[in-house]
Amino acid sequence: MAVLRVLGIDPGLTRCGVGVVDVARDRSATLVHVGVIRSDPHEPIERRLAAIAEGIRAVIDEHSPSVLAVERVFSQHNRHSVMGTAQASGIALLIAGERGLAAATHTPTEVKAAVTGYGVADKRQVQAMVARILRLDEVPQPADAADALALALCHAWRGGTASAPAPAGGSLTPAQRAWANAERLARR
Amino acid sequence: MAVLRVLGIDPGLTRCGVGVVDVARDRSATLVHVGVIRSDPHEPIERRLAAIAEGIRAVIDEHSPSVLAVERVFSQHNRHSVMGTAQASGIALLIAGERGLAAATHTPTEVKAAVTGYGVADKRQVQAMVARILRLDEVPQPADAADALALALCHAWRGGTASAPAPAGGSLTPAQRAWANAERLARR
Repeated sequence: MAVLRVLGIDPGLTRCGVGVVDVARDRSATLVHVGVIRSDPHEPIERRLAAIAEGIRAVIDEHSPSVLAVERVFSQHNRHSVMGTAQASGIALLIAGERGLAAATHTPTEVKAAVTGYGVADKRQVQAMVARILRLDEVPQPADAADALALALCHAWRGGTASAPAPAGGSLTPAQRAWANAERLARR
Repeated sequence: MAVLRVLGIDPGLTRCGVGVVDVARDRSATLVHVGVIRSDPHEPIERRLAAIAEGIRAVIDEHSPSVLAVERVFSQHNRHSVMGTAQASGIALLIAGERGLAAATHTPTEVKAAVTGYGVADKRQVQAMVARILRLDEVPQPADAADALALALCHAWRGGTASAPAPAGGSLTPAQRAWANAERLARR
């Protein structure tokens, strides 16, 4: 396959970012789709999750990604929202399983490292780099949408699932390779 | 409706307890189904969640509950397993939403109070009371199965969703009513 099409998902109940990118063998990347699936905070949780699921399935139907990349959720984060985020991530992974799509999760640090070259970049730096990599005039809004694209890029550049062997590519770490590629792309 | 059929779900990735009970207007309860849906820890997360979803849908197809009651998950619990539990609870709630079934979540304390009359009962006391209420010779095994039944009983006795108004029933608290009922049933 010359191009890997990745659906990145920044899971959330109120706003769930979705971003689809095509990544070529030379690691150049093209924007296919970006958006946010929303659910109404006044609706009961079961309807909110069904709305998120419907939105994710619609993106898959329209853009046929080969793989889903979902942000890995940690319980030590904001306690109030983390359960909704975890549930939304479960929905995304379930849909991958039901559609027979590969799925992987990546930590925020992995995403930052892949996109900017270092794991402690702030969110704004990540989003600005996403816009440069995809040759966009502006950072996609809201932030959840840009974060979903960053996840998709991270997944493609890391060479598949986190548990898969690292791709051949010399002595560079994945982050270094990603950084070199990002710089190259940004100079175009 | 003379009888409320409730599907209780004790969410989990490795073992997801499912219990269906019929609860009559006089609050007497009958066992309809109890079991555990398992997923293989060696499988990727997306397939595990799909297996849980398939199992829950099969129980709904076979027993047609009116409502799902799911244990509310808290992030302060065991960090390692809480994400899988939260994801499984999201799957259960999603299925309710997609099937147009009502759903509610109850905390472990609410379940203990409803079934035993006090919120600090230990798990064994809750499970023993479940067996007595349902006139079973033994406590259903594994514990997840008994916990799912306790959730279903809690939901029926609390009078629907947590946000619904309390049912008419004199000056007793829900826990007191549940306790009085459990005692009455256990004496039969």
